[in-house]
Amino acid sequence: MMNETRTWEWSAEEIRRFGYRVVDEITEHLTRLPTSPVFRPFPPDLAERYLNEPPPTEGAPADDILTAFKEDIEPYPFGNGHPRFFGWVNSPPAVIGVFADALAAAMNPSCAGGNHAAIYVERQVLDWFKQIVGFSRDSMGLLVSGGSMAALTALAVARHAKCGFDIRSKGLQFSPRRLVFYKTSEGHGCNQKAIEVLGIGSENLRIITHDSAFKMIPAELDRVIERDLREGNVPVAVIASVGTVNTGAIDPVEEIADICARRNVWLHVDGAYGAPAILSTKYGPALGALKRADSLAVDPHKWLYVPVEAGLVLVKDAELMRSAFSLVPPYLRTDGSTSGVGGLPWFSEYGFQQTRAFRALKVWMALKHHGLSGYRRAIDADITLAEYLAKSIDASPDLELCRPQSLSIVCFRFAPARLKQNPQALESLNKTILETIQLSGRAFLSSTVLNGKFWLRACIVNPRARLEHMDELVELIRQTGLQCET
Amino acid sequence: MMNETRTWEWSAEEIRRFGYRVVDEITEHLTRLPTSPVFRPFPPDLAERYLNEPPPTEGAPADDILTAFKEDIEPYPFGNGHPRFFGWVNSPPAVIGVFADALAAAMNPSCAGGNHAAIYVERQVLDWFKQIVGFSRDSMGLLVSGGSMAALTALAVARHAKCGFDIRSKGLQFSPRRLVFYKTSEGHGCNQKAIEVLGIGSENLRIITHDSAFKMIPAELDRVIERDLREGNVPVAVIASVGTVNTGAIDPVEEIADICARRNVWLHVDGAYGAPAILSTKYGPALGALKRADSLAVDPHKWLYVPVEAGLVLVKDAELMRSAFSLVPPYLRTDGSTSGVGGLPWFSEYGFQQTRAFRALKVWMALKHHGLSGYRRAIDADITLAEYLAKSIDASPDLELCRPQSLSIVCFRFAPARLKQNPQALESLNKTILETIQLSGRAFLSSTVLNGKFWLRACIVNPRARLEHMDELVELIRQTGLQCET
Repeated sequence: MMNETRTWEWSAEEIRRFGYRVVDEITEHLTRLPTSPVFRPFPPDLAERYLNEPPPTEGAPADDILTAFKEDIEPYPFGNGHPRFFGWVNSPPAVIGVFADALAAAMNPSCAGGNHAAIYVERQVLDWFKQIVGFSRDSMGLLVSGGSMAALTALAVARHAKCGFDIRSKGLQFSPRRLVFYKTSEGHGCNQKAIEVLGIGSENLRIITHDSAFKMIPAELDRVIERDLREGNVPVAVIASVGTVNTGAIDPVEEIADICARRNVWLHVDGAYGAPAILSTKYGPALGALKRADSLAVDPHKWLYVPVEAGLVLVKDAELMRSAFSLVPPYLRTDGSTSGVGGLPWFSEYGFQQTRAFRALKVWMALKHHGLSGYRRAIDADITLAEYLAKSIDASPDLELCRPQSLSIVCFRFAPARLKQNPQALESLNKTILETIQLSGRAFLSSTVLNGKFWLRACIVNPRARLEHMDELVELIRQTGLQCET
Repeated sequence: MMNETRTWEWSAEEIRRFGYRVVDEITEHLTRLPTSPVFRPFPPDLAERYLNEPPPTEGAPADDILTAFKEDIEPYPFGNGHPRFFGWVNSPPAVIGVFADALAAAMNPSCAGGNHAAIYVERQVLDWFKQIVGFSRDSMGLLVSGGSMAALTALAVARHAKCGFDIRSKGLQFSPRRLVFYKTSEGHGCNQKAIEVLGIGSENLRIITHDSAFKMIPAELDRVIERDLREGNVPVAVIASVGTVNTGAIDPVEEIADICARRNVWLHVDGAYGAPAILSTKYGPALGALKRADSLAVDPHKWLYVPVEAGLVLVKDAELMRSAFSLVPPYLRTDGSTSGVGGLPWFSEYGFQQTRAFRALKVWMALKHHGLSGYRRAIDADITLAEYLAKSIDASPDLELCRPQSLSIVCFRFAPARLKQNPQALESLNKTILETIQLSGRAFLSSTVLNGKFWLRACIVNPRARLEHMDELVELIRQTGLQCET
């Protein structure tokens, strides 16, 4: 039990002393990671304790709590700080972003709006992203929790823009016609979730056929839009993917943009994972088409290595974005100024959240520290590693590569010749390999299903990954495959 | 310009050294706050610079970036760390929460699900809140960005539960009947925004009359629900406020719950600000009714002093919550186990986000450090200070108190006898007082409009606020009022 007032009043000495201990712990965690197991499950007895401990009646010293962190929590990470973590699209945290989150929490502003520093940092970050992807300066955006919230924000603006009535007051129940959206089956599930939350209904999300490279077929899109128009439906928005989460496929944005322009349909580009590849040498030129989107989602917490949560949404028509969300009547809105208390137009008028964290700081510090050139090198390196891994797999007679390989994702499976004609055995074996590797702590892969087949999946979004990690992975899969087979 | 590899590879020494500098900066910021101006606008020349700086091509040393933070950002906070900040409902950050955010960012897990420590910490935090408000153990919840996202989550579940058809696939356009929701005009705007995003339309959000204490009138609610039923509409959910943001009014939850039970309507309680008062001596007994809600929003980043973003939503029927959001077909869902890689049922099946930050850690560490008893003392103290401020204002002949005062909010205005009959002059004068005080840096108030009148508004959610700060505020308002009048 503690002294009554002590917990709220920390002296400078206490803050500094405890802070240093926290930094020591962070240092140890980040330094020890590469030589620790990638993953080990939270021990069942500890799990039981955590699921049954009552709320603390009395307070405890901060040092005791840090010790509990050190003993119970730090040893059981998700794994994505490790250079042999290849699961999902989860990058390790840029070190400077870790400390930026502490600075942001110490200032603890509400970034709804106002005339304080955090607002200008977020404005600057948004302006930088506009320039990176080729949006004009008078477009608008927001930092959000991630790709899901970016999708919800952008698609809400699209719905508002294209529905043809006052959706905000009337609601969809009023709609005389069916509002429809478009994506391929490879488009991320968060877009379907957004469609459902928005009240559109997933039946009104048309699944456009993709080609053998998992890319949307523009002619198919056009055909389905035409059919909807003929049936009296309202084509609202196409959701194109730049970097699908399964294979890193990039939908043909330029051709889709042409169709959207001709058909007067909103183009939302889900670049949560892949949009930063616009900085890369290989994919940069093709991704120049990003500037044609009406809205764009990109997650700095994915391929820009910023700690979660750091999502970002850009909307080309700033006033439309504002009119989709603002609760301030137009006659009371201010154009904003950089003097006085009110500051620039409030972020909370352009999106769903009111109180908003200072998540801009970690994006800002990471971009300043690494620079666009540092990011280009890191992203190029990830792409090179993925291509190297794909080649190694392709050169291995007992491994099968899923083609085409794109961005920094590689899908493959263990497929020795003697099992090639036995799809069920192959699937079962690869599932066993996956779990065995995950539990071994020697690497972490995720999986997916493509063309009805089960695949192991490696995503390389780690500036500390090296060629030798790829070699180790191939060897580990082969070893594990042989071991699991017997 | 920097060495190519240096920015991604930080040695233990570099992490520690830079981290210590960050801690020094945090220490200085938190220690200097009480003697610095509460607020000063971001300087216009600096604003222009931030609005025009191009993205950084080359990286810069972390130390330079920290220096820029120290010079450009740290001196211009939002203000809520200061004991004389009384604006909106923004608390200062609990120190331990600041460092928890750094630890969380260093581990940087995705809390979609899995069998790593962060998941169990969030489970424990959710279980603690269930116990605090009287929800059963088999209810479910999530940490979310804040009250807005809590409202969206809860009302999406309510819509799913009550609409009478498969809303997720069919969408609202399919609805044969009008879905309607209920709140008073004092209910927070985030609920209207949620209604609009959900596609319901704000015309279908009925505004229930409140009494002179700004509390929903249950008989009115019942009358409007009855009318809707008569008209063939579907009453979906009542949004009751526990602590309105304007006056801290608490809707009569018990009576509203009776009506909801009788009418088969979902009861969502927006306790974003006020729910923690269940720990208080004065409001605790009345808030025992929170346990009757079907869903509840509470923001630990408000009256539990956790750094933003830390919102929380609880939903009594866990399976309903899951079926409203899960994209995993029921036959593939797992009940979860505390062994293996998969872990417990995934959080991402119970809400809108996929990748989710480890925001549970700051709530967990703050609750452990302060304990329920520490929170009870701090919340009781805030309430006592607000009552003391209200009494001081009431005892001042030139100040007018807006009655009744509730929770830790006090609304009032400068109203010398000679202006009492001149409402326009009073409004204009108080607007000038507000801006003068905000720009003076001596205190920070917000404002509101109640009963057609403009009021100054103080919200005390600060464990470091003291009686003398209340005395200073009253004196400051009187001085400023006299000065602005002349």
